[in-house]
Amino acid sequence: MQNIIIKPIGIIHTPYKTPKDIPIQGIFKNNIEGFLSLNEKYCEGLKDLEAYSHAILIYHFDRSQKEDLISKPFLENEEHGIFAIRSPHRPNHIGLSIVKIKKIIENKVYFTEVDMLDKTPLIDIKPFVKQFDNRENVVSGWVDKHFTNGNIPDRVIL
Amino acid sequence: MQNIIIKPIGIIHTPYKTPKDIPIQGIFKNNIEGFLSLNEKYCEGLKDLEAYSHAILIYHFDRSQKEDLISKPFLENEEHGIFAIRSPHRPNHIGLSIVKIKKIIENKVYFTEVDMLDKTPLIDIKPFVKQFDNRENVVSGWVDKHFTNGNIPDRVIL
Repeated sequence: MQNIIIKPIGIIHTPYKTPKDIPIQGIFKNNIEGFLSLNEKYCEGLKDLEAYSHAILIYHFDRSQKEDLISKPFLENEEHGIFAIRSPHRPNHIGLSIVKIKKIIENKVYFTEVDMLDKTPLIDIKPFVKQFDNRENVVSGWVDKHFTNGNIPDRVIL
Repeated sequence: MQNIIIKPIGIIHTPYKTPKDIPIQGIFKNNIEGFLSLNEKYCEGLKDLEAYSHAILIYHFDRSQKEDLISKPFLENEEHGIFAIRSPHRPNHIGLSIVKIKKIIENKVYFTEVDMLDKTPLIDIKPFVKQFDNRENVVSGWVDKHFTNGNIPDRVIL
């Protein structure tokens, strides 16, 4: 199969300089703000994004230098396959986060629910559409047992 | 910014041979089955994925040959920015679908909620984690008006 060449479309700026600073998912530390700075040639593509409350950001885990097919997630000490966890150390090092849009000014989109490292290369922005992206009756594998009775596990709150 | 080289990790097989066959999102035509065939060298990474009901597939819109920064979505005749719609004709041509896992046999993952073309190159598989990926209080921009009172618009049902 042919390789695919991706050209970053912008840069994500966040307060997180090292992996240890980052919450397991941005939704669990929702008072932190980041922004993405889009290459100005793509600015027109932002039209009407501000009418959405959330966006899906796809980006490059550029600080990960390894690929682990089996790994321990942050939440527990059991090993799982890389496709059953959200670790950056995965084939192709592609990351995905759902963020809450605060405002858009020219080529900059400001958001909360941040969980990326500062200066992360941005690959795509998609609108989060609740009719397409929310799911009911979800079973979340090994993760569910850490969220029993609606609790958020202590290890998630940094 | 440096280009990113992506090596497809497998192929997605679906009954959809041309774009006009595809539902706007797989969730609206949920009796169709597809499967992904993972390159065997990544097989170990599937461990424990079968304990999830849903997965996020990231793939390459390899049949799209153009980039439109402004475009009309399938649901209406108004133009929107490419980052406010889910069209394949976007910078980097990266697609994202949430699918429902039916079974996993060796290197093949069978699923429903299919909305990709047959023979689509697969880039990543992430587990759908309801605690990370579902969102409440979502406003879905120009899309919401097409789903008033919980209705699914006629143009979505092919």
